[in-house]
Amino acid sequence: MRGQRGGAAVTLGEALVSLRSGGPLAIGGQLTMHAAGAELNVAVALARLGHESSWGGVLGDDELGEFILRSLAAERVDASRVRRDSRPTGIMFLEARTPEVSRVFYNRRGSAGARLSPHDVDRILDRDLGWLHLTGITPALSDVARAAVLHAAELCRRRAVPFSVDINFRSKLWSPEEAAEVLPWLIEGAEVVIGSPAELALAAPEGATLEAAAEELLGTGVGEVVAKLGADGAQAFTPHGLLHAPAFPVRAVDTVGAGDAFTAGYLSARLDGDDVAGRLRRGCLLGAFAVGHLGDWEGLPRRDELALLDLGDGETHR
Amino acid sequence: MRGQRGGAAVTLGEALVSLRSGGPLAIGGQLTMHAAGAELNVAVALARLGHESSWGGVLGDDELGEFILRSLAAERVDASRVRRDSRPTGIMFLEARTPEVSRVFYNRRGSAGARLSPHDVDRILDRDLGWLHLTGITPALSDVARAAVLHAAELCRRRAVPFSVDINFRSKLWSPEEAAEVLPWLIEGAEVVIGSPAELALAAPEGATLEAAAEELLGTGVGEVVAKLGADGAQAFTPHGLLHAPAFPVRAVDTVGAGDAFTAGYLSARLDGDDVAGRLRRGCLLGAFAVGHLGDWEGLPRRDELALLDLGDGETHR
Amino acid sequence: MRGQRGGAAVTLGEALVSLRSGGPLAIGGQLTMHAAGAELNVAVALARLGHESSWGGVLGDDELGEFILRSLAAERVDASRVRRDSRPTGIMFLEARTPEVSRVFYNRRGSAGARLSPHDVDRILDRDLGWLHLTGITPALSDVARAAVLHAAELCRRRAVPFSVDINFRSKLWSPEEAAEVLPWLIEGAEVVIGSPAELALAAPEGATLEAAAEELLGTGVGEVVAKLGADGAQAFTPHGLLHAPAFPVRAVDTVGAGDAFTAGYLSARLDGDDVAGRLRRGCLLGAFAVGHLGDWEGLPRRDELALLDLGDGETHR
Amino acid sequence: MRGQRGGAAVTLGEALVSLRSGGPLAIGGQLTMHAAGAELNVAVALARLGHESSWGGVLGDDELGEFILRSLAAERVDASRVRRDSRPTGIMFLEARTPEVSRVFYNRRGSAGARLSPHDVDRILDRDLGWLHLTGITPALSDVARAAVLHAAELCRRRAVPFSVDINFRSKLWSPEEAAEVLPWLIEGAEVVIGSPAELALAAPEGATLEAAAEELLGTGVGEVVAKLGADGAQAFTPHGLLHAPAFPVRAVDTVGAGDAFTAGYLSARLDGDDVAGRLRRGCLLGAFAVGHLGDWEGLPRRDELALLDLGDGETHR
Amino acid sequence: MRGQRGGAAVTLGEALVSLRSGGPLAIGGQLTMHAAGAELNVAVALARLGHESSWGGVLGDDELGEFILRSLAAERVDASRVRRDSRPTGIMFLEARTPEVSRVFYNRRGSAGARLSPHDVDRILDRDLGWLHLTGITPALSDVARAAVLHAAELCRRRAVPFSVDINFRSKLWSPEEAAEVLPWLIEGAEVVIGSPAELALAAPEGATLEAAAEELLGTGVGEVVAKLGADGAQAFTPHGLLHAPAFPVRAVDTVGAGDAFTAGYLSARLDGDDVAGRLRRGCLLGAFAVGHLGDWEGLPRRDELALLDLGDGETHR
Amino acid sequence: MRGQRGGAAVTLGEALVSLRSGGPLAIGGQLTMHAAGAELNVAVALARLGHESSWGGVLGDDELGEFILRSLAAERVDASRVRRDSRPTGIMFLEARTPEVSRVFYNRRGSAGARLSPHDVDRILDRDLGWLHLTGITPALSDVARAAVLHAAELCRRRAVPFSVDINFRSKLWSPEEAAEVLPWLIEGAEVVIGSPAELALAAPEGATLEAAAEELLGTGVGEVVAKLGADGAQAFTPHGLLHAPAFPVRAVDTVGAGDAFTAGYLSARLDGDDVAGRLRRGCLLGAFAVGHLGDWEGLPRRDELALLDLGDGETHR
Repeated sequence: MRGQRGGAAVTLGEALVSLRSGGPLAIGGQLTMHAAGAELNVAVALARLGHESSWGGVLGDDELGEFILRSLAAERVDASRVRRDSRPTGIMFLEARTPEVSRVFYNRRGSAGARLSPHDVDRILDRDLGWLHLTGITPALSDVARAAVLHAAELCRRRAVPFSVDINFRSKLWSPEEAAEVLPWLIEGAEVVIGSPAELALAAPEGATLEAAAEELLGTGVGEVVAKLGADGAQAFTPHGLLHAPAFPVRAVDTVGAGDAFTAGYLSARLDGDDVAGRLRRGCLLGAFAVGHLGDWEGLPRRDELALLDLGDGETHR
Repeated sequence: MRGQRGGAAVTLGEALVSLRSGGPLAIGGQLTMHAAGAELNVAVALARLGHESSWGGVLGDDELGEFILRSLAAERVDASRVRRDSRPTGIMFLEARTPEVSRVFYNRRGSAGARLSPHDVDRILDRDLGWLHLTGITPALSDVARAAVLHAAELCRRRAVPFSVDINFRSKLWSPEEAAEVLPWLIEGAEVVIGSPAELALAAPEGATLEAAAEELLGTGVGEVVAKLGADGAQAFTPHGLLHAPAFPVRAVDTVGAGDAFTAGYLSARLDGDDVAGRLRRGCLLGAFAVGHLGDWEGLPRRDELALLDLGDGETHR
Repeated sequence: MRGQRGGAAVTLGEALVSLRSGGPLAIGGQLTMHAAGAELNVAVALARLGHESSWGGVLGDDELGEFILRSLAAERVDASRVRRDSRPTGIMFLEARTPEVSRVFYNRRGSAGARLSPHDVDRILDRDLGWLHLTGITPALSDVARAAVLHAAELCRRRAVPFSVDINFRSKLWSPEEAAEVLPWLIEGAEVVIGSPAELALAAPEGATLEAAAEELLGTGVGEVVAKLGADGAQAFTPHGLLHAPAFPVRAVDTVGAGDAFTAGYLSARLDGDDVAGRLRRGCLLGAFAVGHLGDWEGLPRRDELALLDLGDGETHR
Repeated sequence: MRGQRGGAAVTLGEALVSLRSGGPLAIGGQLTMHAAGAELNVAVALARLGHESSWGGVLGDDELGEFILRSLAAERVDASRVRRDSRPTGIMFLEARTPEVSRVFYNRRGSAGARLSPHDVDRILDRDLGWLHLTGITPALSDVARAAVLHAAELCRRRAVPFSVDINFRSKLWSPEEAAEVLPWLIEGAEVVIGSPAELALAAPEGATLEAAAEELLGTGVGEVVAKLGADGAQAFTPHGLLHAPAFPVRAVDTVGAGDAFTAGYLSARLDGDDVAGRLRRGCLLGAFAVGHLGDWEGLPRRDELALLDLGDGETHR
Repeated sequence: MRGQRGGAAVTLGEALVSLRSGGPLAIGGQLTMHAAGAELNVAVALARLGHESSWGGVLGDDELGEFILRSLAAERVDASRVRRDSRPTGIMFLEARTPEVSRVFYNRRGSAGARLSPHDVDRILDRDLGWLHLTGITPALSDVARAAVLHAAELCRRRAVPFSVDINFRSKLWSPEEAAEVLPWLIEGAEVVIGSPAELALAAPEGATLEAAAEELLGTGVGEVVAKLGADGAQAFTPHGLLHAPAFPVRAVDTVGAGDAFTAGYLSARLDGDDVAGRLRRGCLLGAFAVGHLGDWEGLPRRDELALLDLGDGETHR
Repeated sequence: MRGQRGGAAVTLGEALVSLRSGGPLAIGGQLTMHAAGAELNVAVALARLGHESSWGGVLGDDELGEFILRSLAAERVDASRVRRDSRPTGIMFLEARTPEVSRVFYNRRGSAGARLSPHDVDRILDRDLGWLHLTGITPALSDVARAAVLHAAELCRRRAVPFSVDINFRSKLWSPEEAAEVLPWLIEGAEVVIGSPAELALAAPEGATLEAAAEELLGTGVGEVVAKLGADGAQAFTPHGLLHAPAFPVRAVDTVGAGDAFTAGYLSARLDGDDVAGRLRRGCLLGAFAVGHLGDWEGLPRRDELALLDLGDGETHR
């Protein structure tokens, strides 16, 4: 494991089985199974890069739960604190329509994953904890999940464990108004807050512009505010100023999971002790790996593979 | 449409999207999408054989519901009285483990299909009705579905519409005791009751043997009692005596859906006016088509294709 | 069905089974089966958008004919007036060579589809007819098909049914000279004539430029002349002037069927009563859906899916 | 090349592209391309066993013809005397319905292959000829093909080249009466005549039983009469008496092509100079390879692979 | 973990990447990647059944090595003592020819796996060791591997750790004479020796029959001698007498890996403390799972899945 | 065969089986088999264009060797002088990571192909030789292969046979220093030397720029120096001056094999007697075919297919 401060990088949330279709679902055909979920994606990406990585949550006591555990084990993500529940593991259907547009349909209502409780959080975090990563998806899943994730943030603040939040607003799960009410409690004291400009505006409603929103968040004690700008790269706002990094020029095969890959890249460099420029660069680099391959995380690099794209020359080394 | 008494053959129940895996689900890989459900299978089988066939039920207002409607339309099963609901369309996973064993896992709790109500039944059956086919699955889905299917049977009795019941006991949905309480109300006055020996015993608890159970059911006014015996063929008990038909000797590729195919074959011959021997023969014939092909109903024959297996010589007519 | 003037939108022509290969046919490998044909594509596209849509023609009394009927039924295109013939259903092989180039090889000589006769046309059009769509492919198939399609245009003129013609010149079926002789008889009095600039020039040989050709066609009483410009969008010439619409910026996966999709989009908006700008816009929108997905029509949108690309932001709504 | 008498083993007839479907064609899905045709199958089987093998016929000047030539070249079957024609290469669809039943649909009317002429035969046979193999399919294709194949048999008789005939009656191409009239002219003087009992009865109409038919054929000067008995093995009738060989006990995966494989095995042993028992044994052995694998000839053995099944112990030599 | 005596069940040997082809390799096409190797198969089977299981060996420092590690991690087999080497990971091609016959071709000469040394063995076994499983493949790989595996057996004898040996004679790796010289040193003092009758005869050359060979081995201090009889089940010889168990009646899909599955089942029951009858039964049960599914170990059961086949009724529990 | 000077175009080197993966090898999944190797690619490309083409080398006496021979035969590349060896045929794994980046892993150490000897060269070149093509890969394989390829160049110089060299530097096989020492001996007197600018600099170490390197090479008697510039096209330096040709604008699907395709296109035009501009144009044209299709050579054109891309209009000729 690379030189990160003592303790594992932990994430928690809901893991789903993603069923990907190559065309309209109404036409039928073949689906491929993938373990998915924003936090799971980040956990896998960090493990691939050699960090001690752990994912916690609740899975159904069913074959889909087994599939997710098998996937996490294959990726060497610690999942020893997962709880199994009699409710089913959640499902999402991912329908590709054009190279630019896919649709997601959830079958997660009443799922095991939404039963994450403060009790679960206590069990998951009862360890030597180096970093905690949370997202704005979990509080939108259920009342108990909301309590759980706020409890997790509070634990970090109390135990002085650094943590990050990817806002990840999901309009299918809650309204902007609901989100705006909860998010401030989640991100208070976070070392890193990440989101699209629109998501950051949700979290900092006073900010009229991206810059103003970042300013507002920094004002509440957030350490760094990072804006994901897609093809335009990313921007980091810190008390010491503003940095921008361009995206890596790759042809997008599948944009799903790119945001999570960016987040993981940013956090990985942070855990390595890299400066803000290095964090943005690795975030964009992981995003490039993600969009260049089908699947949320299947194409992500090991640490020794980072140079494949970072050389940027696209040659095949025969 | 073939010479059946006026009116369509109608079935009602829950339709699911079946996701079939070629191996353990915990391993992942590819799934194929199929429209499934015991009553849907019967409706498709009858339509393939040229009967005017209709399926009624409740589907989610989602892409899986669209997929089922598209499948029914392709098979020329009338689905014009289907209701769409905001709950999701049910899913089942079908896991093949060996040529002899597959497992089914349902993701149908809270599904749209379980919301079938007596109101829905009134709408579905408000037509020129030639035959109604019901199963013992529907009453196990929910209280309202139980009321719906008992209402449907009652309507038939009142309107003197002949109807059939395939007992189809599902241990994952209810207990034998629950079933034994409801089934008598469902099959009272049915023209045809079909089941495995164990299922028939559930419906006629006084019967110590298959013969005794059949006797008991015939005594309550059921017209014909048909026992599915798998590789041993099938047996029909009528007031005029007992008939047995052997199974067609085919190599089983996939036994899922074979029971529904048998039922449809039996009913098809009945609608054609064939005698009991002819009904058993066509039931076994459709069962043979079903086990000889992957999928619940994909391999079933059109009427002009019945001779493919009925010649029994297995030759390829090059 | 949307607010179109009374009566179905009907097309007629030849339907083929398209066998698509992922690489050179001489190498062999796998082919996928698709129902195809310019008029069938338009009929499916209109049905997807909720229009009452019907396709008429002649199919072989074979399994390929069954496949096409099954595909049309799945898409809810009325095919009740199709005639079956002892000649075989036509086949086309579609060979993808590069993302930009595919080749088509026909196996349609002597096919059932080319036997479309004026008698067939009378049967197909003997209904409440809201719109008829014809193409320049049908008259190139056979003498009787030529008579049939000219008869169809004449029927429209006599019954004052609005009709459209997509010129669709196929150099493998006839020469430009042959086409130039027949086309004027086909498009006389058409409400809408659609084609590439080169095709419009064929139909209006006096026109030295696209503008002149359009002028000439408008001069013969055609209502609107629409030029498909591929990546440059489309242009409509009407007695009230000229309008241009840009193409939607999507990455092309498969350009086959894009022209038919454009035509269907244009006609759909026309049937909805939209103005010329709206017609061009929907034409380009459907073209974008078509090029963004493999298959002639499999990726086309339902009406509720139009917004997937019309938002143009390419995001995935997780 | 093995010790066969000087000159190549030549076959001639029609080669087709076989498009195989894993289920009902009306359902659609994927097809795989295969080079097929009874005579082509025999030519490939002989080449695999190391004989100098040549196939002659007429192919369309199209990509399907290229595919067949490429397949023959890969299998080292000489096809240098093939003629290309502007008519299309014939197609057959092979639809698997159950493990025991598949259906074949031809799209060969007007195909290039049916244009085989006596002129073509002269060109194909103008070489050092060790053996000629003919079938009863070719004379059923067209008048000119009938003339061609009878001309070929006549050439052999005149040049004292040994030849064989596999009767291969195809009811889709001609009637038993038509066949019965032509076959005697074809098989006169043949060294080997092969067929099912029913086919041999067609060729020797006076024979009331298989034995009588064989007797009759031997009486006309045929050297050996070989009856293919499927799962019951095969029987050879010669002037020196009768021999029977059992089939190899394998599980049938695909019976298509098994008859051609048997014929090739029998002829291979004959070319090697083996006795009748050895010929029957190799015939049955090749039949076993053929039924144990998908495809007409893809699973056939090279000479060094014969022992894979001839050991009959089914073990995997890890 | 189930009640096994303290310490993990450990195996060691060479792991390979198995590339499986659906037909003749000379034809080309698709291959699927699998982690394979007799000892790896046993380790995975034990882990699936809930035993603490560990595999040790040497893997190449390449992507194939990564693939094997990923597969082991997914199956929760501890591989923490694996050494990586600059030599490549070994490959085997598995060619399916008929349902009964497949061939294996190794590309393992000079592979990393053959570099297993006594040093490696010391590292692998330096732990709380409950059971060690060895095979007769490892001593055939190289001189150093032979020394390593004999060293492992010796360590067990010295530390009084129970161990088992599956003879697994591979004629492609060494001659019967070479094997007969080495095997006695390997199996001396083993608790369990497993093999086919022919393999047991190799290890006990004085034994003229299976019974005599078993007697001889028991005489040298081996605890139990187990003969794998394929479709005839298995037999165990112990100082207390002889037991036989029949095979489970399943249709064989793929026999590769069945022997390893039997061995793992036998050992699993032994670790559970079951009696000899129970060990034979579980051995045959795991063999049935293995032959009923493609892949060496992919279809093997978890402990809660044993009942799927042990009920033996083959029904699908819908 | 086209009007090339008497004699075949011959290449020699190592042929490999390329196993292509659609994603990270560590994830596993499916691989497809392809015959590969820079010289084999050139030989196939020339044969497709109608040149008499021959490939020589050493293949393992295994199924992978059979596969390569079968592929060469299918493409009508003469391989009659290939030697089989007891060492295994080499393997390469090709791992696609993004549309721009793939990785190659060789498993060729100790392969049969590296055993190419001067003796083999004598046998391969003992024929009417029109052109010989060599690459800088062969001398990097082994000492004997180095001797073989230098011997081949020397033979050409002695027999006044024109020859070409594609430098094809492979950093996994040798160092730049080793290459720089050998290359001058290889390319001395070559008619055509082809390489990337970096590769040309290796061969002409005095040249500080591409122009200077080309000057230096021309100074040693090389006839033409051709620089492959990827997306920027290509440049030819001759005693008569410098020519540049742009790349064809296609979307790259797979860049592997594009360099070999360029080389073959250039040589093909040279063999046809085209001028330098025509050679560059055909080189770029073949490169475009190669990058537009998956596989090293599968998508390359026959001569009658060159116009598919040379029209450059990308239309599908329906």
